[in-house]
Amino acid sequence: MTRRSSDNALMVAHDEESVATFGANRVVIEAVSPEVEAGRFPAKSVAGQPFTVEADIFCDGHERIDAALLVRRADEADWREFPMALFDNDRWRGIAVLDDNARYTYTVIAWRDFFASWRDEVVKKRAAGVDVGLELAEARDLLVRTIAEADRGSSADRKRLEALVGEIDALQGVAPRLDHLLAADILELMRCTGLRTDLSRYPRELALTVDRKTAGFSAWYELFPRSMSDDSGRHGTFDDVIAKLPYVSGLGFDVLYFPPIHPIGQAFRKGRNNTTTSEPGDPGSPYAIGSAEGGHDAIHPELGTFDDFTRLVAAARDHGLEIALDFAIQCSPDHPWIKEHPDWFDWRPDGTIKYAENPPKKYQDIVNVRFYGDAFPAAWLALRDIVLFWVELGIKIFRVDNPHTKPFSFWEWMIHTVQEKYPDVIFLAEAFTRPKVMKRLAKVGFTQSYSYFTWRNTKAELTEYLTELTQAPCRDYMRPNFFVNTPDINPFFLQTSGRPGFRIRQVLAAGLGGNYGVYSGFELCESAPVAGKEEYLDSEKYEIKARDWGRAGNIRSDIALMNRLRHTHPALQLFTNVSFYNAWNDDILYFAKTTPAKDDFILFAVNLDPYNAQEADFEVPLWEFGMPDEASIATEDLINGERFTWHGKIQHMRLDPHQNPYAIWRLIPFEGDTA
Amino acid sequence: MTRRSSDNALMVAHDEESVATFGANRVVIEAVSPEVEAGRFPAKSVAGQPFTVEADIFCDGHERIDAALLVRRADEADWREFPMALFDNDRWRGIAVLDDNARYTYTVIAWRDFFASWRDEVVKKRAAGVDVGLELAEARDLLVRTIAEADRGSSADRKRLEALVGEIDALQGVAPRLDHLLAADILELMRCTGLRTDLSRYPRELALTVDRKTAGFSAWYELFPRSMSDDSGRHGTFDDVIAKLPYVSGLGFDVLYFPPIHPIGQAFRKGRNNTTTSEPGDPGSPYAIGSAEGGHDAIHPELGTFDDFTRLVAAARDHGLEIALDFAIQCSPDHPWIKEHPDWFDWRPDGTIKYAENPPKKYQDIVNVRFYGDAFPAAWLALRDIVLFWVELGIKIFRVDNPHTKPFSFWEWMIHTVQEKYPDVIFLAEAFTRPKVMKRLAKVGFTQSYSYFTWRNTKAELTEYLTELTQAPCRDYMRPNFFVNTPDINPFFLQTSGRPGFRIRQVLAAGLGGNYGVYSGFELCESAPVAGKEEYLDSEKYEIKARDWGRAGNIRSDIALMNRLRHTHPALQLFTNVSFYNAWNDDILYFAKTTPAKDDFILFAVNLDPYNAQEADFEVPLWEFGMPDEASIATEDLINGERFTWHGKIQHMRLDPHQNPYAIWRLIPFEGDTA
Repeated sequence: MTRRSSDNALMVAHDEESVATFGANRVVIEAVSPEVEAGRFPAKSVAGQPFTVEADIFCDGHERIDAALLVRRADEADWREFPMALFDNDRWRGIAVLDDNARYTYTVIAWRDFFASWRDEVVKKRAAGVDVGLELAEARDLLVRTIAEADRGSSADRKRLEALVGEIDALQGVAPRLDHLLAADILELMRCTGLRTDLSRYPRELALTVDRKTAGFSAWYELFPRSMSDDSGRHGTFDDVIAKLPYVSGLGFDVLYFPPIHPIGQAFRKGRNNTTTSEPGDPGSPYAIGSAEGGHDAIHPELGTFDDFTRLVAAARDHGLEIALDFAIQCSPDHPWIKEHPDWFDWRPDGTIKYAENPPKKYQDIVNVRFYGDAFPAAWLALRDIVLFWVELGIKIFRVDNPHTKPFSFWEWMIHTVQEKYPDVIFLAEAFTRPKVMKRLAKVGFTQSYSYFTWRNTKAELTEYLTELTQAPCRDYMRPNFFVNTPDINPFFLQTSGRPGFRIRQVLAAGLGGNYGVYSGFELCESAPVAGKEEYLDSEKYEIKARDWGRAGNIRSDIALMNRLRHTHPALQLFTNVSFYNAWNDDILYFAKTTPAKDDFILFAVNLDPYNAQEADFEVPLWEFGMPDEASIATEDLINGERFTWHGKIQHMRLDPHQNPYAIWRLIPFEGDTA
Repeated sequence: MTRRSSDNALMVAHDEESVATFGANRVVIEAVSPEVEAGRFPAKSVAGQPFTVEADIFCDGHERIDAALLVRRADEADWREFPMALFDNDRWRGIAVLDDNARYTYTVIAWRDFFASWRDEVVKKRAAGVDVGLELAEARDLLVRTIAEADRGSSADRKRLEALVGEIDALQGVAPRLDHLLAADILELMRCTGLRTDLSRYPRELALTVDRKTAGFSAWYELFPRSMSDDSGRHGTFDDVIAKLPYVSGLGFDVLYFPPIHPIGQAFRKGRNNTTTSEPGDPGSPYAIGSAEGGHDAIHPELGTFDDFTRLVAAARDHGLEIALDFAIQCSPDHPWIKEHPDWFDWRPDGTIKYAENPPKKYQDIVNVRFYGDAFPAAWLALRDIVLFWVELGIKIFRVDNPHTKPFSFWEWMIHTVQEKYPDVIFLAEAFTRPKVMKRLAKVGFTQSYSYFTWRNTKAELTEYLTELTQAPCRDYMRPNFFVNTPDINPFFLQTSGRPGFRIRQVLAAGLGGNYGVYSGFELCESAPVAGKEEYLDSEKYEIKARDWGRAGNIRSDIALMNRLRHTHPALQLFTNVSFYNAWNDDILYFAKTTPAKDDFILFAVNLDPYNAQEADFEVPLWEFGMPDEASIATEDLINGERFTWHGKIQHMRLDPHQNPYAIWRLIPFEGDTA
């Protein structure tokens, strides 16, 4: 049959253009991880820790490919290159360690590697006894072309490359020449200088926020400064807090956090136990911010002066404590902004200000700031400048109150612009709401997030929740902070568990959480509730409380132990490094935290039942070290410092909540090898 | 404490600019599905079928929000709007039915709905006995503002809206006015005309390929035209194929697919059973394309002329069959292109052409086309024009040979430009390779994909694989075609299963697959292998085969039954609509296919064991119709047409592979209601 000419006349400029567009990026790079919302938001990492990037990378045909991770500081032009390696089914991985608390940009490149492909093919053919004379000639051609075109590698490498053709030509016969070309050092030379044929680049450059270490590793202690007088009849001062620093520092905490320290409104001031009418002398809720004495950039006069505050910040630092302040945007009806900026608030048809409500509930002691309409952008700038005001007084950590009731866009802009100037500022989102809302706050920039940990009590709940937080995509941008209680949350579990329950929740929070927190009174096992609610009776939000800090039955030693272990064991300074192992009892949670190199391998066993002793057989994870089931392993009990040896994988434990509701062991697998 | 002035001087132009950038899109729209690789590739749908889009949509605070799906033809400017509704945890869903075989664009918008928010709040306050006089005044203000600003709704709606304020004012007292405003028709009026406050738009416009129905619903029959003489001594012709059309059509197939019909090379022609030397008279592999008689745009002379071919295409159409051709890019060393376009091929240092190899294996009868270097873009254009050449001869379906050994970019460009002119052209990717490579081919545009179905035999394998294909993200862009065998694949299962195994695989492929395929001989239970391999002995790729089409023990009636049921039952024309139910026997696969409305609900039970009868209790999925476990349900046996009633959820079945290895039932849940 003869050929018929095609009558297609599509071969026009349009074609040449479209084929050029489609023709690029022959090597496929996709499914890069981390990548938050297709690059819309930055991933997060911590300075000095490995930042791991993975991607699916492959090409048509059978040629060898190679790939690299590119990273640069967002404010610098030069890319640093980190090699990537295939580890599974077209999945490649590269690791960068980034030292600066700064914003970075990263992407992935990949290319076809002709020399490696040639080498593979020749090795196979040679093994099969096939003549490879032509292949040798092809390699020589490739070398000549590489010398002419390549633009990578050190000058020493380039010189070595240029000498190579001569070296080959000087040898006699196919076999010696091939031996020379197949040497490992030539492969490495070509890796450094060789052509990157069909170089592809991932279409997006992705953002990365590298925070300082505290972002991922911090133990918080929350207290109301006004209660630090230890006398419910006298308003505490910053000096009283300074006197309490040795106590907090002695417990081993890193961050000392205060609810708002600003002037408190008089209008509609709340009384004790959140009553709508206050008695004379009632201090009011510190969340009703603003009075004739000032707003968010003022200090409640009874606490002290700015000088006192500055002294407190310095004294805390001397005690190894960093002060965190509350950023709560609502205003009391007495806040100066209401007169200065009436257009930042909502007004009703009768000329009254619109207070906060959740119908039919009313919150007459606070009004919300508007973010759009006439308040935009002046209110945004003013609020951001409030944060900067405190930053410049030395405060670098903010716990943000109810961020989910303010626009996500505001937080994204605010955090971004503050961190542009002060990358070391940390924001903790206090949002207890729907999962996607909490995740969005983390995406828009919050450094840490309150979590559902406070309500996860059973083995199934904890395992499922921790697995999500440490394995699902949210691990790339959300860092939970595991608070055991807050002034707003007196968990049902603790209301009935007694002291053992406090010890259990403490070890879970401090052991599982990179970040965790305690609101004062927890260490004293306070739990008197408003009947039937997860609220504290006589809440400190509405009155000054005096405590007996040495009260019998306190758990201060448990807290100090955990905080000491956290500081001495690198495995406890990470979050996504948890593994759950088998202990055959649904009341015993048994897990490990480990460094990537497994040189710090800490096991926790926690009896979740605060009433009864529980026992279980359990598996010592010998396989993690490549050890057989019948091997012996040296172990250190981290509670009492004793050393012993487990013989074999299956062991037995008994945990009595009235003695030791938990055990903590360090595995020392190769002690014999190194001793 | 007095206020201190901030010394921050960041409030500059930079701020105003950044705040404006961040301030937009208050309502969050994220996690839109389908979205293939962040919008890099189109999703796929079928004309006339519902296209469902989901997204996470939420906003700060408690205001009511609303959302819509926007869709337009890619070649038109006007968007069509489809309402979205919340169905789960901040997840919204909208459904569009698109009628054209064309490319579309879609995205999502969302906004805050002040009127709905106001209505919610007032209803709650009224129920709580709170005075709502001010709320009424606020609603009137909102109406006035809506009339002034709104630009949506029909002119009748706008008139109704403008009249509303007067209607309200004419009523006396708060209660009657509120009653009027809270009426359902006012809510609907405001939905059509009301303000869309803080309108957000998803940042990406996503592409959608809407294919014709055959893309998702087709039964393929593959035959070698040269074997259609039914005489191994005579080369078959297109006229012989025409004579065979009643046979194929009688089996109920939709697509008749031929391996390459082009001239076959003489150089290094393969002999019978893939030997490297051919005997005189050996026809050679049709995949060694091209000879002195022409290349990819010519017809092998022994098959007939272009006129014969055109007659065949028309005759097939008269029999309800659409012809599919093979698009195999490799060339025999005799292909005209090798002389005409030497720069489209690789040459070795000794001047010989580089044939295909997979070291140490050599394929001297074929050479591969280059796609880059001097071949770019001329070879791309030429190959695309080959496809267009056959399209213009009436061929709209191509099975593409080994696409994974050619650049993905080429396929993306080729399919895109062909479908720009001919959106009804269908491409099936014949790639049996790594999962990500197969998925990428589907992403770049292949309409259908060969699959691993051929090697999925057990209940666990089939359940897992079908769950992935129908539930994982690949469901949005990959349409598998379940071939039971091919000229290259004689599955081990069929080599030993006997006739029952062929019946089992047939009902699985036709029942599970929207698209499925059979290579001729399957219906005759042919399975003689090359010993130890999944290859056919005396492969038809290298010789002309004559068959006894009426051979005893054939399964033609099974095939005809399944194809008839596929054409009469809408549930069998979809793919992602499979559900697996409980039958307590690991050898019995028990599943349903159903329409979204469940008005066509087909149950399959397949005994996967071709040797032994298997029985099992199983669950009739009464709960799918809201029926209690003890309900009765009318059922039709689709194999014999008999009707009966199941009483209660648990029933029992027995499937003897030598009688009926499978059962097919239609549930008729509400027969009593409608009769």
